[in-house]
Amino acid sequence: MQMQDYTATREDRFTFGLWTVGWQGVDVFGSAIRPPLDPAEAIHRLSDLGAYGITFHDNDVFPFGADAATKEAHLAPLRKALDATGLTVPMITTNLFSHPVFRDGGFTNNDRDVRRFAVRKALDNVDLAAEMGAKIFVAWGGREGAESGAAKDIRTALDRYAEAFNLLAQYTIDRGYDLRFAIEPKPNEPRGDILLPTIGHALAFINELEHPELVGLNPEVGHEEMASLNYAHGLAQALWHGKLFHADLNGQTGPRYDQDLRFGAGNARGAFWTVDILENGGYDGPRHFDFKPPRTEDMDGVWASAEGCMRNYLILREKSRAFRADPDVQEAMRLARVDELGVPTLADGESLADLRAEPFDPDAAAERGMGFERLDQLALEHLYGVR
Amino acid sequence: MQMQDYTATREDRFTFGLWTVGWQGVDVFGSAIRPPLDPAEAIHRLSDLGAYGITFHDNDVFPFGADAATKEAHLAPLRKALDATGLTVPMITTNLFSHPVFRDGGFTNNDRDVRRFAVRKALDNVDLAAEMGAKIFVAWGGREGAESGAAKDIRTALDRYAEAFNLLAQYTIDRGYDLRFAIEPKPNEPRGDILLPTIGHALAFINELEHPELVGLNPEVGHEEMASLNYAHGLAQALWHGKLFHADLNGQTGPRYDQDLRFGAGNARGAFWTVDILENGGYDGPRHFDFKPPRTEDMDGVWASAEGCMRNYLILREKSRAFRADPDVQEAMRLARVDELGVPTLADGESLADLRAEPFDPDAAAERGMGFERLDQLALEHLYGVR
Amino acid sequence: MQMQDYTATREDRFTFGLWTVGWQGVDVFGSAIRPPLDPAEAIHRLSDLGAYGITFHDNDVFPFGADAATKEAHLAPLRKALDATGLTVPMITTNLFSHPVFRDGGFTNNDRDVRRFAVRKALDNVDLAAEMGAKIFVAWGGREGAESGAAKDIRTALDRYAEAFNLLAQYTIDRGYDLRFAIEPKPNEPRGDILLPTIGHALAFINELEHPELVGLNPEVGHEEMASLNYAHGLAQALWHGKLFHADLNGQTGPRYDQDLRFGAGNARGAFWTVDILENGGYDGPRHFDFKPPRTEDMDGVWASAEGCMRNYLILREKSRAFRADPDVQEAMRLARVDELGVPTLADGESLADLRAEPFDPDAAAERGMGFERLDQLALEHLYGVR
Amino acid sequence: MQMQDYTATREDRFTFGLWTVGWQGVDVFGSAIRPPLDPAEAIHRLSDLGAYGITFHDNDVFPFGADAATKEAHLAPLRKALDATGLTVPMITTNLFSHPVFRDGGFTNNDRDVRRFAVRKALDNVDLAAEMGAKIFVAWGGREGAESGAAKDIRTALDRYAEAFNLLAQYTIDRGYDLRFAIEPKPNEPRGDILLPTIGHALAFINELEHPELVGLNPEVGHEEMASLNYAHGLAQALWHGKLFHADLNGQTGPRYDQDLRFGAGNARGAFWTVDILENGGYDGPRHFDFKPPRTEDMDGVWASAEGCMRNYLILREKSRAFRADPDVQEAMRLARVDELGVPTLADGESLADLRAEPFDPDAAAERGMGFERLDQLALEHLYGVR
Repeated sequence: MQMQDYTATREDRFTFGLWTVGWQGVDVFGSAIRPPLDPAEAIHRLSDLGAYGITFHDNDVFPFGADAATKEAHLAPLRKALDATGLTVPMITTNLFSHPVFRDGGFTNNDRDVRRFAVRKALDNVDLAAEMGAKIFVAWGGREGAESGAAKDIRTALDRYAEAFNLLAQYTIDRGYDLRFAIEPKPNEPRGDILLPTIGHALAFINELEHPELVGLNPEVGHEEMASLNYAHGLAQALWHGKLFHADLNGQTGPRYDQDLRFGAGNARGAFWTVDILENGGYDGPRHFDFKPPRTEDMDGVWASAEGCMRNYLILREKSRAFRADPDVQEAMRLARVDELGVPTLADGESLADLRAEPFDPDAAAERGMGFERLDQLALEHLYGVR
Repeated sequence: MQMQDYTATREDRFTFGLWTVGWQGVDVFGSAIRPPLDPAEAIHRLSDLGAYGITFHDNDVFPFGADAATKEAHLAPLRKALDATGLTVPMITTNLFSHPVFRDGGFTNNDRDVRRFAVRKALDNVDLAAEMGAKIFVAWGGREGAESGAAKDIRTALDRYAEAFNLLAQYTIDRGYDLRFAIEPKPNEPRGDILLPTIGHALAFINELEHPELVGLNPEVGHEEMASLNYAHGLAQALWHGKLFHADLNGQTGPRYDQDLRFGAGNARGAFWTVDILENGGYDGPRHFDFKPPRTEDMDGVWASAEGCMRNYLILREKSRAFRADPDVQEAMRLARVDELGVPTLADGESLADLRAEPFDPDAAAERGMGFERLDQLALEHLYGVR
Repeated sequence: MQMQDYTATREDRFTFGLWTVGWQGVDVFGSAIRPPLDPAEAIHRLSDLGAYGITFHDNDVFPFGADAATKEAHLAPLRKALDATGLTVPMITTNLFSHPVFRDGGFTNNDRDVRRFAVRKALDNVDLAAEMGAKIFVAWGGREGAESGAAKDIRTALDRYAEAFNLLAQYTIDRGYDLRFAIEPKPNEPRGDILLPTIGHALAFINELEHPELVGLNPEVGHEEMASLNYAHGLAQALWHGKLFHADLNGQTGPRYDQDLRFGAGNARGAFWTVDILENGGYDGPRHFDFKPPRTEDMDGVWASAEGCMRNYLILREKSRAFRADPDVQEAMRLARVDELGVPTLADGESLADLRAEPFDPDAAAERGMGFERLDQLALEHLYGVR
Repeated sequence: MQMQDYTATREDRFTFGLWTVGWQGVDVFGSAIRPPLDPAEAIHRLSDLGAYGITFHDNDVFPFGADAATKEAHLAPLRKALDATGLTVPMITTNLFSHPVFRDGGFTNNDRDVRRFAVRKALDNVDLAAEMGAKIFVAWGGREGAESGAAKDIRTALDRYAEAFNLLAQYTIDRGYDLRFAIEPKPNEPRGDILLPTIGHALAFINELEHPELVGLNPEVGHEEMASLNYAHGLAQALWHGKLFHADLNGQTGPRYDQDLRFGAGNARGAFWTVDILENGGYDGPRHFDFKPPRTEDMDGVWASAEGCMRNYLILREKSRAFRADPDVQEAMRLARVDELGVPTLADGESLADLRAEPFDPDAAAERGMGFERLDQLALEHLYGVR
């Protein structure tokens, strides 16, 4: 394998949430460990590292409850930094989970007043997203859920959830905004169980909306792995449905607290297949990192961690290409009959009666090995960089 | 709480898979521990215990590869036992996972010959299901999946999976069968990752089929809990989509091997909410048990385990009714604003502009507690039987 | 079952951490949701609810870095409240995880200066514990661990960990304090992997200390269940080693973020067996609750949640007694040969040669069922309150 | 990185259980998929692949209940194959889990007759182990456990477990065998909860035995990862206690069924740190693979899988060496103060009073980042083979 320089460029289209490098380290067991990071500084530093754009929640930039003047006072230096660096804002999202008013969620809060407020806050941010030129509006309903069985009528909550997306979608249509929504599923944390816990549940939900064409998915590595699910498989199913609008890349080590490790850390083999499907599956959005630099790090460590996300993606992209181009891999795939899965089970023009009449010896067929171990070993050796 | 006699009757509509009480105890680490159980005997014993019906895979009754005469030789005593007891067969399913030919699955096997055989085997069983009067045909694709990333192209596998359901659905339409299909999701085991791993993924998949109206879900307690998901929430979402065609009841203790404990064992609180949503959410199918009497048990233990499944359901049904009827619970629900979630967020005739103009003090609203702990404690005390 | 009044009394010896009812709700995704709770008020309220005592970290009462006068200014009203109510302080613990200086832990921080500071902070608190009459000093090393492989040499970290406990133990001996240490294991969160992740690892570690007799365990329900381990089994093994010095009771739903639900919530069957082993296994310390009232609750909900912890313990204690006294249970236990496990495998005076000469028919013995399902169903019906 | 030929040699000391390549693929959901593998053939094939030795359960070689002549009839060709190839048998183990008589385990079965039989069976196998020159006798108590709370008194079960190990240890002393025992922990499967569920629990247990010096650990990758534990950390703690007698290498993807993937598959980063601690932590036993070639594979796939185990170990060994030798890594370790953890917290001759008198500014110290992200990125790039 020929080693490259794994330095990110604009063409790689890497984006970062402002809340990632800006995370101060507050967790359940400890207080802030790093100073606040000025959004404009974050933009300049990320630009220097080769990023393509940034994304943010409203309250990553301006305080909760800010009036128009205060908002603009905080947005102005951000806009200036974007202009200066050429960075874009492809995605914006709303914080409906940090303020105490969202203790039972936003769109599905039992308290109607809060639901109404959540819709207002989201609408304000949709306006901002349109103004900033964002094309994707992510909705992570982190507090939409319950710790106990009677507290939340799930079917009714899904009614309200659908109502909120219908309102937002109609609003973007009415305003003529070029903006689509991307739901980010998560199984739990900070709620005991969260609504739309996986890629699958969110995909199913979208089919019940009034404007399903405007709503897709923003799956996150760690969120699926917290449910022991295969993230690359999830991306593939989302792509199969035409619904992979955005993707949140990070690292996780199985079912435990939401680790938000830098991309590449955590499940290394999963990261390889993640890059492989993103590169080869038709996804054309930004490569967005949603991670938290560990609390052990100072700001130097934060930037090292951010740079690592991009480096690891580039390394794995190169490996994916080498893997797909390797003649030994191609031969092993043929032996594993990977391509044969593309041939319809029923031939063109064939009837079920024809199919049922076909002779078959299952015992003989049962002797054919699939050759998957050999193929997987080749993949692993590409990951190791020894081929 | 007034204690009842928790003996099952036909009206309770409890059904059992023949493979449950008939499980001989073979696992990865040990051989058969119980003798084969004659299906006719199983039917008589389950009838005596108060069951309403039984269900089976083709090869629970006749051997793999049996010709028509052999099939009928095995079916005849089963039919006789059904006649003698009055038990029904509301559901039938096909074994596409035990024979070595299914080493890479059935409908999504990379090997087209095997896919064709799987369709044939399923079609034969669809004919049998129709003949037996079953209304639901369950499809658990236990071997449809992969242990490694390159072995299976997930999007192509979903194409083949959809093709198979389209063929089966069209076949039932062409034959005029009164039969619907119910997909049973599972995240893993016996494959490293299984296709359609959760309720959500299967619901989404169904929307892409040619006859989505003929395909629904058969969610299993343990399968969802293996992915750390809330089973009762999953049932609620399936009901919300109108897709809860059948349900497999058993017990599991979180993400680990598929335990198939008797219903009530495992997650006791989850079982309460499971019964609550089944009883109150509009589900009208049989209460079907898919469990495995532990290997520690002899046949007496098997029947004790089967009886326990039904008893626990009846106990929990009584508790659910008492919980819903309890004035203290109703008051606690009002305080928790559970009913308020049923009020649309936007009032009838109200515009978004109206909503946006509404004044709101988030800090004041943030002080309102939800009262969920009190409500949950009441639920727990009903579970404990101390109210 | 005869229903009792499940109101706690001093005799029940329930204790609460001040940080439990005092938790303000800060988590990774949100800010404080409840006002600070004055320790004296907490003491009075817990006293009114029937608690026996309270426990605290140093910085639950006085600020990090407080000088002697400031400490005393905060301790005085606490002492007064204790005097007024008669509540005790059976356990004290040190916060070595919240301040940024502990970003890599305390006793095993790579930074020696920080390790020295951690020892100083713990020693100060040992003095306080002795002065307050606490008998147990809990050590939860929540930040002792790592997210990545090279960052921490585990064997060297265990050397430092042992050094710290040796220093603390020798200090209590030198001062003549009547104080023992209790290690609280946890597998992960807030670190990717924490040192001494389970009851077992901590028990093994203690054997390497200079004064193992002074060090035992403080196992927490949720921490063991986060590792898919059976908490009651863990308590039993700790008791078997004579090392159950203290226990932290709360609720958890399997491997996910640390939920700290009130005792009884989460794994209801596990809670039954937890109470059963605590009541019958020889544990004589306080019943200590370490939970977090969910963020959905206001202060009324906090007190409802605290009361629920005690009520659930009392309900389950009554059930455990009824279960053990039930003649049907006793008969089922005999049939399950539970008592036979108490008979040594080799008879007194018997040689291995004798044992080896004994004839045995394994196939005949293999037919004996264990009767565990019947026994477990009886246990479950006691939990349900229907026996 | 200079690429090597990763072909195993005798000097690498790779060993395989006969049950690994010989696994026929029987699982809960399916029947045998591969023909029985003659042990002698397995030995020749493994020898050709570069293995150093093989290991086995008694019933991997001769049938359950075989008399002396039958045993020898099965052992003779195995001995011949060992002689012909020069392969060794460093470890032997007993099957106390497959036959129905072990439905409730062996050494801790509630049924005393079965416990006595289990001890006899183990003693017979200890004799065989000594005769074959094995130095390690592994004890995996896979069926020692329970699915339900009342079925097993855990403290009494630990008494019986200890009794069994005491009998076996005394027997080896009396016979003068050069043989040590290695306990293999596992949290669950095939029992709901297994006794001695983790490395830690087994280490603690050993301390209560009459001859702790004769008993150590045989930790398995997958078993620890099923409990979300860090396997390399577990190996490090076992080494710290001087108890890493043997190790079972394979692959697993988090808490789910026991996958027994080939080494290197599953958690790739974990595999790197596993090799790193085995190579650098003082372990000098064989590198033993305990995996199951997936059911997708025919015998060619079986051998490819076995070869992959060894290749991956060699690849990772090379990477570990390169990582440790890399000056950038050494510098990053210094910056992360990894070496500083080796300096005792209290200086030689220093008193606690001295330590307590030391001035310290925690806020200033809190600003020092640990540099772990940079260090971990270097490790990951060594794994990727791009340094």
